[in-house]
Amino acid sequence: MTTDQQPLTLREKIYQIIFEADTPAGKRFDIALLVVIVISIALVMLESIPSVKQIYGKELLSAEWLITILFTVEYLLRIFSSPKPAKYIFSFLGIIDLLAIIPTFLSLLAPDAQALVVIRAIRLLRIYRILKLYHFIRASNLLVLALQRSARKILIFMMFIAILVVMLGSIMYVVEGAQNGFYSIPLSIYWAIITLTTVGYGDIVPLTDLGKFIASFIMLLGYSILAIPTGIVTVEMSRTFNESTDKHKTCNNCGEPHHTPEANYCRICGEKLSKV
Amino acid sequence: MTTDQQPLTLREKIYQIIFEADTPAGKRFDIALLVVIVISIALVMLESIPSVKQIYGKELLSAEWLITILFTVEYLLRIFSSPKPAKYIFSFLGIIDLLAIIPTFLSLLAPDAQALVVIRAIRLLRIYRILKLYHFIRASNLLVLALQRSARKILIFMMFIAILVVMLGSIMYVVEGAQNGFYSIPLSIYWAIITLTTVGYGDIVPLTDLGKFIASFIMLLGYSILAIPTGIVTVEMSRTFNESTDKHKTCNNCGEPHHTPEANYCRICGEKLSKV
Amino acid sequence: MTTDQQPLTLREKIYQIIFEADTPAGKRFDIALLVVIVISIALVMLESIPSVKQIYGKELLSAEWLITILFTVEYLLRIFSSPKPAKYIFSFLGIIDLLAIIPTFLSLLAPDAQALVVIRAIRLLRIYRILKLYHFIRASNLLVLALQRSARKILIFMMFIAILVVMLGSIMYVVEGAQNGFYSIPLSIYWAIITLTTVGYGDIVPLTDLGKFIASFIMLLGYSILAIPTGIVTVEMSRTFNESTDKHKTCNNCGEPHHTPEANYCRICGEKLSKV
Amino acid sequence: MTTDQQPLTLREKIYQIIFEADTPAGKRFDIALLVVIVISIALVMLESIPSVKQIYGKELLSAEWLITILFTVEYLLRIFSSPKPAKYIFSFLGIIDLLAIIPTFLSLLAPDAQALVVIRAIRLLRIYRILKLYHFIRASNLLVLALQRSARKILIFMMFIAILVVMLGSIMYVVEGAQNGFYSIPLSIYWAIITLTTVGYGDIVPLTDLGKFIASFIMLLGYSILAIPTGIVTVEMSRTFNESTDKHKTCNNCGEPHHTPEANYCRICGEKLSKV
Repeated sequence: MTTDQQPLTLREKIYQIIFEADTPAGKRFDIALLVVIVISIALVMLESIPSVKQIYGKELLSAEWLITILFTVEYLLRIFSSPKPAKYIFSFLGIIDLLAIIPTFLSLLAPDAQALVVIRAIRLLRIYRILKLYHFIRASNLLVLALQRSARKILIFMMFIAILVVMLGSIMYVVEGAQNGFYSIPLSIYWAIITLTTVGYGDIVPLTDLGKFIASFIMLLGYSILAIPTGIVTVEMSRTFNESTDKHKTCNNCGEPHHTPEANYCRICGEKLSKV
Repeated sequence: MTTDQQPLTLREKIYQIIFEADTPAGKRFDIALLVVIVISIALVMLESIPSVKQIYGKELLSAEWLITILFTVEYLLRIFSSPKPAKYIFSFLGIIDLLAIIPTFLSLLAPDAQALVVIRAIRLLRIYRILKLYHFIRASNLLVLALQRSARKILIFMMFIAILVVMLGSIMYVVEGAQNGFYSIPLSIYWAIITLTTVGYGDIVPLTDLGKFIASFIMLLGYSILAIPTGIVTVEMSRTFNESTDKHKTCNNCGEPHHTPEANYCRICGEKLSKV
Repeated sequence: MTTDQQPLTLREKIYQIIFEADTPAGKRFDIALLVVIVISIALVMLESIPSVKQIYGKELLSAEWLITILFTVEYLLRIFSSPKPAKYIFSFLGIIDLLAIIPTFLSLLAPDAQALVVIRAIRLLRIYRILKLYHFIRASNLLVLALQRSARKILIFMMFIAILVVMLGSIMYVVEGAQNGFYSIPLSIYWAIITLTTVGYGDIVPLTDLGKFIASFIMLLGYSILAIPTGIVTVEMSRTFNESTDKHKTCNNCGEPHHTPEANYCRICGEKLSKV
Repeated sequence: MTTDQQPLTLREKIYQIIFEADTPAGKRFDIALLVVIVISIALVMLESIPSVKQIYGKELLSAEWLITILFTVEYLLRIFSSPKPAKYIFSFLGIIDLLAIIPTFLSLLAPDAQALVVIRAIRLLRIYRILKLYHFIRASNLLVLALQRSARKILIFMMFIAILVVMLGSIMYVVEGAQNGFYSIPLSIYWAIITLTTVGYGDIVPLTDLGKFIASFIMLLGYSILAIPTGIVTVEMSRTFNESTDKHKTCNNCGEPHHTPEANYCRICGEKLSKV
């Protein structure tokens, strides 16, 4: 877009590399950023394991500072090169980029603050940048399109599920009651979701005979209605994928492209179609 | 339907607003009712949580009386405006509407009765009114149609599942017996349903080797036959959704039936198609 | 078949009623038998519940004898009316019919034998007779046909699953070992099946980090490959159901029936097809 | 391939029998090998059960030596008959074949080494040879083809699932924390996988209200997105299976391509079709 004849300023060059993915340098930057984000996520994970932190505490700290400095440089370059810095700073990704570097600097002020470990986990949200890189993968376009088309029907299904678990959870609260672990209606709804989705933790289970009977009914229901979202998505995928591979004849006279191979005449203008 | 030239009586106007959804006022009433029902359900849920009830007991009581008065007014207006009040009063929704307001009034007579908390949960059934509002959502028509078409085959599948769990549960009762937690055949059937639907609470598990072997078989069976309801629903959805987009024109000259609505000429013989 | 002009003997009449379902009397007999079998199964279930047996022991005993006498009469009539009694007696259903009545008579000889309760459960196998009555339900034909067509591919999938759980179970036995509850390879395979089918009892769970990593992999695998049997069955159902509704043109000259509606000429003999 | 007119050397004959499956002898060898591998796997399984090993220890030892000698002979014959022995020895299957026989011989040097029991389990990997025999089963070709076509889309789905469980696991680590059993982020991710795939062991469960709310969301998500891999595989299977039965003839006169192989005349213009 911005690549015209006249030479680019440094700012424009940096913008192209950091914000766009059209040039080889831009692609290399995206991949490098992806790798650093994955490493930074791995670091946060490792730090959360007590035994690892005890042994490799110093190494993790050094690595953390290295990552933080890299992220800080990237953040400053993004502000510098962006044509509208304020727009970037207050965008969703801009705020996450800032939140990803703040905790490490804050730890200088209060080195023992336990809360910072928790805040540092916000860095994990940078994983969203990976999702933004989805344009690397062409095939996902059809997937996303099929899911968008299913969204409306899936939403109705979810509303139906919501009403169902509220009703079933309330019935079970009345049937089993607090003495059997169904302490409140929200907890009973939580149990109904566990049962309907066939997760089945087993932390709350019906103890009365009637409760077990209702639970059996919920299980069989959950087992069967799983077919509904699957059916919706399968049908939409089938349409989306097939559309993309259907090879139509095009009329030479009026340009109408939607003719199946066995058509002899253009369905719009009546012109005879040429053989494929 | 009832909106002719002559002016409506107050009764007819109320009927239009409360029972119908064609007029703007009717739609606003439906949405307002929906909101109040959701709030009343939230109140019943909150009341069921001991800690919340202890702190916000008074506020919940006030809110409950407000909801009850609103529901009572609505109930009386429904009786007043209905052309056949008796029919409404003894209808399914009419009885639920009454049951939704009775418990709060009964609590005046016996303020400490624990049982009333339970009866109050009946108010949750008013959620059915939300389901009645499904005409707001057009897309659900095709979903419901596809499910109705699947119903017969799903029923046969369910009968097969019922026979299966009775047989498998009985076998496990003989194999494991009361000493391993399979106290009776109905309980063993309950376990078979938990296992076949892949819920897997873990409250009852086979302890003998043979029992574990049979359990493995049931799991693999349940894992595979999930394909049956899914297949049924997917095929019926595929038909239903495709039919709705396949209103074809037929050529009067050659009889070729596969022309989409925008086609002007027969694709086989070139004859002009008549407008639908 | 056997209903010719000449009058039927008593034996033939009984045969028609008991073994066939073509006549009104035959259908009534089938339904009555179905009801009695369901009642007898309910009796066995109720007897297996200790609290019920204690209170209603006498009533259950009377009902059991009534059922047993009915089944005995039916058994003797089947032998009497069958053209080849030996063939019936040694058939699968014949043996089950006998096993269903023996335990009650045996209880006269040894009234306290606990084992008889177990043997009596064999009566549950008479439920197979219900499955034999499936001809009542037309729609099940297409379902059964679709499943038969899927059988071969499902079998290959099951073989693959079998090899998979043997390998995964063995790996987990090596990784976790007896100290973490994976006492033997068969038990570890049982665990792998519980995990792969997403049942997840939780009676055996991985305790080492590596074990948890492998378990995560198995879960995601089980979650994904569920798509395979579903895909197989859906495709076969789609074919089977669509075939049954496809309306083909038939050639008047050679009788070839498989022509789609847009065909103009018989694909076998070249005769012009008449319009539908 | 190698079966020309001139007589085969012993080496070539052995090669044909062991490495190929075209000749009757080759097929018999494959089946015999399959049986011995299954027996050897059953032996490893039985040995892993403490009670069985105690009683049948000697018999198992004898059987193990018999199997080991058979495998050793086979291994040596493979090296002898292979045109490029080094290539076989260092191939994946060659290394497994060696690893399958080493542990038993090592047990002569250190008869009490517990570790050998573990190493012996490597023999289970010989089960891969069974997978290599898949050419026995024709129908699996279409299955494999359909899965290969789905692979790319399934991979994208798996990447999405990976990002999802990392984010959800991290959120739950922050929400629940070590005091509720979510000791580290990797463990929380493990929990997220257990919940999303609807396995639901119940060894780790959310204890806070917010945690339960998030868990409910994850369950409903996992329940719904199961539709995605199922949809992908179903659509690809539908294409693959239909293509395999759709080898169409095309009319040379009018170009109409949709003629099944048994068609003789073009259904559109009546022209005689050429043989395929």
